[in-house]
Amino acid sequence: MPVAPKRLFASDNVAGAHPLVLEALNRANSGHALAYGQDDLTHQVELQFSELFGADVRTMFVYGGTGANVMALAAMLKPAEAVVCTSWAHIAVDETGAPERVLGAKLIDLPSPDGKLRPDQLRALTGIIGSQHHAQPGVVSITQPTELGMLYSADEVRVLCDTAHDMGMLVHMDCARVANATAALGANTATLRSFTIQAGVDVLSFGGTKAGGVFGEAVVFLNRSLGQRAHYIRKQVTQLHSKMRFISAQYQALLTDNLFIELGARANTAARRLYDSTHHIASLGLHQPPQVNSLFPTIADPFKTQLQEWSFFWDWDISQQQVRWMTAWDIEPSDVDAFVTGVKTIID
Amino acid sequence: MPVAPKRLFASDNVAGAHPLVLEALNRANSGHALAYGQDDLTHQVELQFSELFGADVRTMFVYGGTGANVMALAAMLKPAEAVVCTSWAHIAVDETGAPERVLGAKLIDLPSPDGKLRPDQLRALTGIIGSQHHAQPGVVSITQPTELGMLYSADEVRVLCDTAHDMGMLVHMDCARVANATAALGANTATLRSFTIQAGVDVLSFGGTKAGGVFGEAVVFLNRSLGQRAHYIRKQVTQLHSKMRFISAQYQALLTDNLFIELGARANTAARRLYDSTHHIASLGLHQPPQVNSLFPTIADPFKTQLQEWSFFWDWDISQQQVRWMTAWDIEPSDVDAFVTGVKTIID
Amino acid sequence: MPVAPKRLFASDNVAGAHPLVLEALNRANSGHALAYGQDDLTHQVELQFSELFGADVRTMFVYGGTGANVMALAAMLKPAEAVVCTSWAHIAVDETGAPERVLGAKLIDLPSPDGKLRPDQLRALTGIIGSQHHAQPGVVSITQPTELGMLYSADEVRVLCDTAHDMGMLVHMDCARVANATAALGANTATLRSFTIQAGVDVLSFGGTKAGGVFGEAVVFLNRSLGQRAHYIRKQVTQLHSKMRFISAQYQALLTDNLFIELGARANTAARRLYDSTHHIASLGLHQPPQVNSLFPTIADPFKTQLQEWSFFWDWDISQQQVRWMTAWDIEPSDVDAFVTGVKTIID
Amino acid sequence: MPVAPKRLFASDNVAGAHPLVLEALNRANSGHALAYGQDDLTHQVELQFSELFGADVRTMFVYGGTGANVMALAAMLKPAEAVVCTSWAHIAVDETGAPERVLGAKLIDLPSPDGKLRPDQLRALTGIIGSQHHAQPGVVSITQPTELGMLYSADEVRVLCDTAHDMGMLVHMDCARVANATAALGANTATLRSFTIQAGVDVLSFGGTKAGGVFGEAVVFLNRSLGQRAHYIRKQVTQLHSKMRFISAQYQALLTDNLFIELGARANTAARRLYDSTHHIASLGLHQPPQVNSLFPTIADPFKTQLQEWSFFWDWDISQQQVRWMTAWDIEPSDVDAFVTGVKTIID
Repeated sequence: MPVAPKRLFASDNVAGAHPLVLEALNRANSGHALAYGQDDLTHQVELQFSELFGADVRTMFVYGGTGANVMALAAMLKPAEAVVCTSWAHIAVDETGAPERVLGAKLIDLPSPDGKLRPDQLRALTGIIGSQHHAQPGVVSITQPTELGMLYSADEVRVLCDTAHDMGMLVHMDCARVANATAALGANTATLRSFTIQAGVDVLSFGGTKAGGVFGEAVVFLNRSLGQRAHYIRKQVTQLHSKMRFISAQYQALLTDNLFIELGARANTAARRLYDSTHHIASLGLHQPPQVNSLFPTIADPFKTQLQEWSFFWDWDISQQQVRWMTAWDIEPSDVDAFVTGVKTIID
Repeated sequence: MPVAPKRLFASDNVAGAHPLVLEALNRANSGHALAYGQDDLTHQVELQFSELFGADVRTMFVYGGTGANVMALAAMLKPAEAVVCTSWAHIAVDETGAPERVLGAKLIDLPSPDGKLRPDQLRALTGIIGSQHHAQPGVVSITQPTELGMLYSADEVRVLCDTAHDMGMLVHMDCARVANATAALGANTATLRSFTIQAGVDVLSFGGTKAGGVFGEAVVFLNRSLGQRAHYIRKQVTQLHSKMRFISAQYQALLTDNLFIELGARANTAARRLYDSTHHIASLGLHQPPQVNSLFPTIADPFKTQLQEWSFFWDWDISQQQVRWMTAWDIEPSDVDAFVTGVKTIID
Repeated sequence: MPVAPKRLFASDNVAGAHPLVLEALNRANSGHALAYGQDDLTHQVELQFSELFGADVRTMFVYGGTGANVMALAAMLKPAEAVVCTSWAHIAVDETGAPERVLGAKLIDLPSPDGKLRPDQLRALTGIIGSQHHAQPGVVSITQPTELGMLYSADEVRVLCDTAHDMGMLVHMDCARVANATAALGANTATLRSFTIQAGVDVLSFGGTKAGGVFGEAVVFLNRSLGQRAHYIRKQVTQLHSKMRFISAQYQALLTDNLFIELGARANTAARRLYDSTHHIASLGLHQPPQVNSLFPTIADPFKTQLQEWSFFWDWDISQQQVRWMTAWDIEPSDVDAFVTGVKTIID
Repeated sequence: MPVAPKRLFASDNVAGAHPLVLEALNRANSGHALAYGQDDLTHQVELQFSELFGADVRTMFVYGGTGANVMALAAMLKPAEAVVCTSWAHIAVDETGAPERVLGAKLIDLPSPDGKLRPDQLRALTGIIGSQHHAQPGVVSITQPTELGMLYSADEVRVLCDTAHDMGMLVHMDCARVANATAALGANTATLRSFTIQAGVDVLSFGGTKAGGVFGEAVVFLNRSLGQRAHYIRKQVTQLHSKMRFISAQYQALLTDNLFIELGARANTAARRLYDSTHHIASLGLHQPPQVNSLFPTIADPFKTQLQEWSFFWDWDISQQQVRWMTAWDIEPSDVDAFVTGVKTIID
């Protein structure tokens, strides 16, 4: 076998933090600062978020992605309401039931071939609205990009939001990979606004960890009024950090000069390079270039196991012999090329 | 007014991180590592915890102190059980109802002059055991040092644990200030073991943030069998960090050469210096030296407000004109002396 | 020993149902009727409640008293809010933690010598309002009559409601013994209105079971807007009966000619008769006549046990040698007299 | 139109109570009895349940069906576990999210053409067992008969139970229509045992309301050890009735001479009579006789609405023009014949 790549294609959270993020975190370690978000730096970065979205949004930093989703939903749900999502949704399958436990709410998870929810699926819920026997659809939660690496266009999001709002529902967007989505759809602030605040999304889970952070995510109340009780809810769902400046500093770095978009673009570009070098291998079943930073090839054993032992990546759907290759923000072209060499050695 | 001290006496979480902790965090930012605790560093630090306690304990890193407490209790409670604590307990009054929300469990909070629970108070619960009308006392949660800055001796903990166990209850210790407690009671590993694992404590919330960390606390299952389902519970209560190595690295630094104890001792020493220089001022009502790193003097207005505006600290009990002075790990003797000068200028 | 009374002084739920209630229940068993409250009888009785309160209230029937309280509170609480009550409150001590489990909310239980909450106690909570570290006081829950058999006057309720509302809180009244309270305070509809809707109570748990019913309680939204989502919440907290007519029929009987008030009066009168015949026995410590239907005498052993074995009643506070004598709606004067004879035989 | 039937085909809870049940309830209204299940009658009926199942089972009476299911599951689930059921399951779609709210647990709802779960579907969950990112399958909940009117054979239940147990899961059976299932599968006690306790079911929701009761269901711990904490859990999930004798009395009547089976058989027979008289109408799409007491014909508008206005029944799946005809225990042959006449008048 050739030399394995220096970096893994296992996930975007196997990477570390970007030097500028770490530098900002180190710089924040100076003197004393009031805890729990009452420091100057946090206030500044909250304003930076309002600039990013071109509106007076309310931003609350939390610890992690599951916490961000749970906190956002906790602020949006009324009693006896349910969350509508796809059956691929991270909240439905990858959060160990945290939404059900902390929210006490049902997730209505609808089938989807690509992880995207369709307006028709929302409209089909009309039949249960008003019936006391059914948890009432209250919040639609969509993931951008989806867990299957697909993107909603700004128009698609807008139609979903309009449909949801018409039916009396709110819209949450799980944007743990906001960097990748923004990079893919236009790579600037206008793009980000187009598929979020301008499309009608009410609350956003804004991910920084996968985009070069150490820890800390943001819940952004684009619909500011929904954030009125958010500071109580944040602590109640165990997401209030004491030394907040250490999260804020990271976001200051990520938002300055849109660093997060640049890092998302790097990951996307690496995934595209990987696709370009491998999609001719028919057995991989890679029919379309990746929209963001993940590929879902099929590899039969023993080849799959051989490859994983050489440079680890995760299985996706064992019954379909499908695996996931995912590129982090720090993947270099040389990593891709080394990985491709290995793939070809074993499969091609 | 004299020049204000460079550092605040507001809390121990207004301080930043210790240089060695930050250095370790920076060093961990090297290359790729599997996420969610499957990295080598995390495994090493888990072993370090077993060495610290001289037993095969199970250690789970979480994000914050409230999360640590909630996760520990979630692993300990059976259905329809309640948590017994004092009415000063952090879980009862300072966590925005997180235990009730996430655990769905009642807290039976008993009065206490110093934040310490007494065996008699446990025994007095015998009357409700076995009655279907009452949530059943299942876990005793004590705080070491207490929220009022008082320490349990190892013997006191042992008697409480014995009483609890005899009554069929488990014991959780909220040790967010484990550094201060250990430093005060003997300042070595044997001390730590004496008031925790050897005293019969089942599960420990082990605090690192207040002792010079950036973020991340540990839940230590001294009674290892209680941790069997802990990895599921950790994520379900939103406390699983993806880039775990960044927490583990900090604990590696804090545990190496017992750095955390040293830092706890520094904070305690600073509080003692502050006491020694001010307890002669009768109006402050400081009758006993601090056991750890907090003082609770009384100061009437307008003096109180003048002092707070000069160098901020928090009110404790407004109805009693009581405030809290708390020293962080990084308080220098010069900070204490500067603060004392201000106090004397205004009050003495 | 003399012959024991035919009926017990153990509780008001050891009695059966009043003949008119049972007759109504039997009469409802005729033909088919739509389930879940969509039947004509239920609609009629809902209107009867509006007549009773002289306002367009929203009435929801539930199964039991704990369910009534939990459902009422579920409709009133916003996320991260707490319920303020006394430490004697049924919701706090006699419902096995159901409020914490189903609501996920903290109960802030304040001390009280008689089970009554004071406006000052509410005002003292001002300090935690607005602090993200504390569950926010959202609903005040008072019990009328209290668990210690004491009554709030209409004026006292009004001042509490005004105070609560001024502070942004809502008011729930647990009126499991509404019959006894109404009978004691004036024994007519105007009385009932005076200490509930006219005093500013927002939501009422209206008890029928103790007043001669078989099963079924009512949650009455005096503040009708709070009931908007109540039909979803009712089923979500497992309180929706399918064959609803069987509950409605009982309330039709209880409300017709204010039967429930008459039955409450009977129980109160019996308690007064018991007091009149025993308060001269100094060791019982009965210093004041009962306000409703319970007495809390002190009886030392072996006398207490002898009496309990002869005609059972419950201990109240073992540490004080205090027991509870409670009269049900069906207690006859001859029952009281027989009981008194026994008491005198053993104690006097 | 012909004369409408005296009774509805809308549901089995539109019927009232059987005379013998009501008679027993009336008879129970005699004198005083200790509350909360401590009365003699309740103890007797608990023993009757043990005789019914031929084993020392633990029976707990609750208020309603949703409460029975929630309580049973609350006693079975460990922290971070999920309930596996079909997407037709009453707990998943008809209980307004009560399980998620009260249990804080995820329901993993799997597709099924007939509401029956298959062993293969359980085995397919093996992939998530042991992964900290997924709620762990802990309890399998099946419905007998299913929400689509289909029956598991005793063998099918046994294989499911064996599979579940082999995977470390417990089995709950929602038997709200235990009368209909037992009547259909053999109509005696041996039948009931064969598909429940002998098949390996751990906990049973045993329905009486639909089988001629007024109110009250039973949770039967066939695996008695699972019921150890059940009396605490029952009250915590708001399902403890005070005047318990009124539930117990009904079950005494229902179990005596297997009255419940006889009433289930009546309902089943009526459904079969309805099928026999209508299945020749091709447009109804009734291809198989009912296994228990429900038919799911398709009827296009305006015929459907005309029929509903004449004798009401519920829509089932509007998108498929499917409705549900369900027979209660008290449906007479003359009701069926009258209904059939109407159907033929409008459709045939």
